[in-house]
Amino acid sequence: MQTDLRAVLFDVFGTVVDWRSGIAAAAAPFLARYGATGADPFAFADRWRGHYGPSMEEVRSGRRPFVRLDVLHRETLLSVLPTFGIDPVAVPEVELDDLTFAWHRLDPWADAVEGLTRLKRRFVIAPLSNGNIALLLNMAKRAGLPWDAILGAEAVRAYKPTKQAYLRTAELLALAPGQICMVAAHNSDLAAARACGLRTAFVPRPTEHGADQTTDLRPEQDWDVVANDLLLLADVLAP
Amino acid sequence: MQTDLRAVLFDVFGTVVDWRSGIAAAAAPFLARYGATGADPFAFADRWRGHYGPSMEEVRSGRRPFVRLDVLHRETLLSVLPTFGIDPVAVPEVELDDLTFAWHRLDPWADAVEGLTRLKRRFVIAPLSNGNIALLLNMAKRAGLPWDAILGAEAVRAYKPTKQAYLRTAELLALAPGQICMVAAHNSDLAAARACGLRTAFVPRPTEHGADQTTDLRPEQDWDVVANDLLLLADVLAP
Repeated sequence: MQTDLRAVLFDVFGTVVDWRSGIAAAAAPFLARYGATGADPFAFADRWRGHYGPSMEEVRSGRRPFVRLDVLHRETLLSVLPTFGIDPVAVPEVELDDLTFAWHRLDPWADAVEGLTRLKRRFVIAPLSNGNIALLLNMAKRAGLPWDAILGAEAVRAYKPTKQAYLRTAELLALAPGQICMVAAHNSDLAAARACGLRTAFVPRPTEHGADQTTDLRPEQDWDVVANDLLLLADVLAP
Repeated sequence: MQTDLRAVLFDVFGTVVDWRSGIAAAAAPFLARYGATGADPFAFADRWRGHYGPSMEEVRSGRRPFVRLDVLHRETLLSVLPTFGIDPVAVPEVELDDLTFAWHRLDPWADAVEGLTRLKRRFVIAPLSNGNIALLLNMAKRAGLPWDAILGAEAVRAYKPTKQAYLRTAELLALAPGQICMVAAHNSDLAAARACGLRTAFVPRPTEHGADQTTDLRPEQDWDVVANDLLLLADVLAP
């Protein structure tokens, strides 16, 4: 597996950072301030994240030109607020922006910074995320994620899991797909990467969706590597 | 100047790394191996670099679709070799590739790594270079350049000094041009950046072209900052 492996690319939301806790923590005071005092901020995070796939599908399908994820997050926030009894028009723009940018301020899982740091010694490491460049940069600066480069959907103007997202990223790195390993907590991301010829590493995050998570608890294919966190992944790839 | 400054972007060839010494050092054994024993490797470096502007102009003018700098370097190498009495056909492809990739292995000026490290604490730092992403990544990994992101011509598919190179980079960073400072040893790069609304910092590199250099010894406009090296630039921008 290590033979000629040059770059290790990472899904970010769920794989490197804990988006659900971060969004819930940012939403809690916001919900209280706008009268949704009984609302569960984790339910709010889940609902907002629920719009993620459908909003990107508009772009993937070609029905909409590429727009960065910040734009989609801002739009879907407006859709979610009424579900929690909040009229978006009553919220100042600056507050809507600030909550949107909570996606820039997510905390990494406890193993992430050290695992990435160890992998960086041997490989090019970069996000291959649907997050936009400013989002990933701000997140990295705040959390200390030591990326070598910021790649992903915006750099190639294509959202995962389209083939273009993986293949154009390989092209930017001037690497063959087989010289790249995709790391994700999501079987579907790895299946798409494998279909493009990338190597695959599954790192389960069994509480990404909370204690009752039912999806992505186990590998669904014989991924090249399965490791329970990024430290163990570094043990395998960069011993 | 520091007010709301968020990102400091760098020209690379000449400003951060010493391309002339690096290319001459890589060329010297190559020239000897192919019989050009009397050739001055610095003259070879200068001649090769002389093709840099014209080769990019084909792309800037629209006569040629965007291709990465590695491709241009490989092509112009073939043009330069006969000038030194070497028939490109007599050189194995792998050797031509290796010499082309000498542009990935350039050493930084002595102040660069520490200066960038200090600036990184306060700002997003990234190359805004005509070098391609793999070139800049390989260079950074080898030299320890601590970029937050790898930006530049390939990321925006436009070579400096076209306006698109600067403005699309600002767009990728989700910043206004005035929140970005362009750092370069070349007045022409800064003039183009200023015309797009970026802040400007001139860092002269009076031996980039050797001891007899006559160009870019002094600032030709009232740039926002003039600093003699990247440590002094950090003193001004991130005291």
